[in-house]
Amino acid sequence: MRVFGVDPGSARLGYGVVDAVGGRHRLVDHGVLKAGRSLAFPRRLATLYDQLLEALRRHSPDVVAVEEVFHGRNPRTAIKIGECRGVALLAAVQIGASIVEYATRDVKKAVVGHGGARKDQVLWMIAREFRLDPSELGEDAADALALCLTHVQRIRTHAIAP
Amino acid sequence: MRVFGVDPGSARLGYGVVDAVGGRHRLVDHGVLKAGRSLAFPRRLATLYDQLLEALRRHSPDVVAVEEVFHGRNPRTAIKIGECRGVALLAAVQIGASIVEYATRDVKKAVVGHGGARKDQVLWMIAREFRLDPSELGEDAADALALCLTHVQRIRTHAIAP
Repeated sequence: MRVFGVDPGSARLGYGVVDAVGGRHRLVDHGVLKAGRSLAFPRRLATLYDQLLEALRRHSPDVVAVEEVFHGRNPRTAIKIGECRGVALLAAVQIGASIVEYATRDVKKAVVGHGGARKDQVLWMIAREFRLDPSELGEDAADALALCLTHVQRIRTHAIAP
Repeated sequence: MRVFGVDPGSARLGYGVVDAVGGRHRLVDHGVLKAGRSLAFPRRLATLYDQLLEALRRHSPDVVAVEEVFHGRNPRTAIKIGECRGVALLAAVQIGASIVEYATRDVKKAVVGHGGARKDQVLWMIAREFRLDPSELGEDAADALALCLTHVQRIRTHAIAP
């Protein structure tokens, strides 16, 4: 099973790709898609969508994992986050992948061990897990890989449950 | 100049098309695109996007007008609104149209005469303007046509300004 994690933002979109076979998982790809801040917002959305669709087609994942976002933000920020999520969800549907959503707390719990973990703790744990340099990896791609790992763990737990 | 107004929602998307030539304007089309509530949310987004892209390609507008939304909503609702707006903005960029945004207050002021007007007042004024039956028109398509009218008025005001 191939999992593609997405952390959508309006100027940077982090992604990660992880293959899980049996009890093992391996890193396939990770990176950050960018849209210049000089572009008008709708054009940034379209630029990120084009790059994301290309990456999704290239990796052909079974599952796309995104973060569930719904609290602690003001409505204006929430609208912008929603706009970025919208085009990411659209691209995922268009390549025929299943979509799973995980709350931030659940991702932090799965990766660091507790739901209140800081962002840099997630970065360090993901870097260690996949033997990457934290400063090269960066928080956006780390968050996307954290989503992949959360899904892999969830599937594994369900598979060995009685 | 052809203006395409969009009022995006997660199950219903209202649209309207108005041509403005010189001091006159005429109704070209209006309607509501629908996505079954039985579909999962990302699939609804994709269904609305497909229909909207088809309508935009058919009408080939110069300008797409959308409502600026940023207050009075809770973050969870705002995320959902954002997701719908995101795919609408994407479709508008993809057909090469210009995008304009108007605040709700400005639309109400342009159509009814004051920014605090109720939604049904917008519906009645739009129905009267375009000689349509209000109950057949409905609020979603009326809001989209109100955006078109706001843009047409704005352009006209600027054109005759000294």
